[in-house]
Amino acid sequence: MSRWEPDTRDRLERAALELFVDHGFDAVTVPEITARAGLTTRTFFRHFADKREVLFADSDQMPILATHLVRDAPPDLGPMDVFAQGLAMLAKGFEGRLAQLKQRKAVIDGNDGLRERELRKMERLVDAIADAFRLRGVDDLTAAVVAETAVGVVKVALRRWIDSDGQEPLLAVMTDSLARIGDAFDQFHQRR
Amino acid sequence: MSRWEPDTRDRLERAALELFVDHGFDAVTVPEITARAGLTTRTFFRHFADKREVLFADSDQMPILATHLVRDAPPDLGPMDVFAQGLAMLAKGFEGRLAQLKQRKAVIDGNDGLRERELRKMERLVDAIADAFRLRGVDDLTAAVVAETAVGVVKVALRRWIDSDGQEPLLAVMTDSLARIGDAFDQFHQRR
Repeated sequence: MSRWEPDTRDRLERAALELFVDHGFDAVTVPEITARAGLTTRTFFRHFADKREVLFADSDQMPILATHLVRDAPPDLGPMDVFAQGLAMLAKGFEGRLAQLKQRKAVIDGNDGLRERELRKMERLVDAIADAFRLRGVDDLTAAVVAETAVGVVKVALRRWIDSDGQEPLLAVMTDSLARIGDAFDQFHQRR
Repeated sequence: MSRWEPDTRDRLERAALELFVDHGFDAVTVPEITARAGLTTRTFFRHFADKREVLFADSDQMPILATHLVRDAPPDLGPMDVFAQGLAMLAKGFEGRLAQLKQRKAVIDGNDGLRERELRKMERLVDAIADAFRLRGVDDLTAAVVAETAVGVVKVALRRWIDSDGQEPLLAVMTDSLARIGDAFDQFHQRR
């Protein structure tokens, strides 16, 4: 890769993920990442606070992104419509990053500390979505359970999409996952 | 308390929770717990492998309990009905333990390591429920998303019940939480 290539951050991410997959997250150092990327550690630290951030910088943005999506949705939409609308934008952000997401998942699944950090991030995402719903006037309990459902759907759909190597478009998997819960409620005896 | 009292395990749990709340989980030792309970450390280790187990022994049982509930439900029930039916038994197991659950929650919320352990246990519970649904012939994707939804409902309802000091019966809070998702789906534009 030539030095003037603009996608420095992307090169750092790719180099880091490859090393994490090959040697395990704990064994890899920042100088090893920058050596593989052909960049300096100084450049690395302009983009990431530490090597963990390579894995989590994007997911740190998710609560902010989700809050904006919920806030900016048309005011007459119910919470499930808001969520369904947001899926399109969410899917667009992930599509085209399948290879990195697959590596990222392998690294996180293989490391207890990273796994726990990922779970805490998901929890924070649930809280952010619930708060954003409350600000739209959704009642407290509905906000909480719909936020749990929403994050559950995204988790399941992403995992399925990654594990199937992107066989179907991510948005289709997400929409399908959401529809399955709807179908299960349609069948639900006690509500008839 | 007299020595012949049969509820040894309960005494150990109460003593441990009080100490955890007062001094923080990390600072408390097993001998301190047994001293407060008026029992020997040997007795403690007959009931719990370590002090963390006082907090997690019950939740370790939840995947097993959930698996049995799903497996033994009438074969014609859909997954959401199976879940709704299971709520009654689940609520019965928690009712009467409000004080302990409140203390447990305070201890766990105040300690990152415990919080992460709790999240991983919830994750394992989701996986167990999804697997149990699959064994009933529920399709893979529905099993996964309904399991996520189910655990989300239980989490939200338990938190609400504990935070409101058990104002309403737990089963009512659980049923209500589940119904809110159903209502949100009823409103859902894209499915009409």
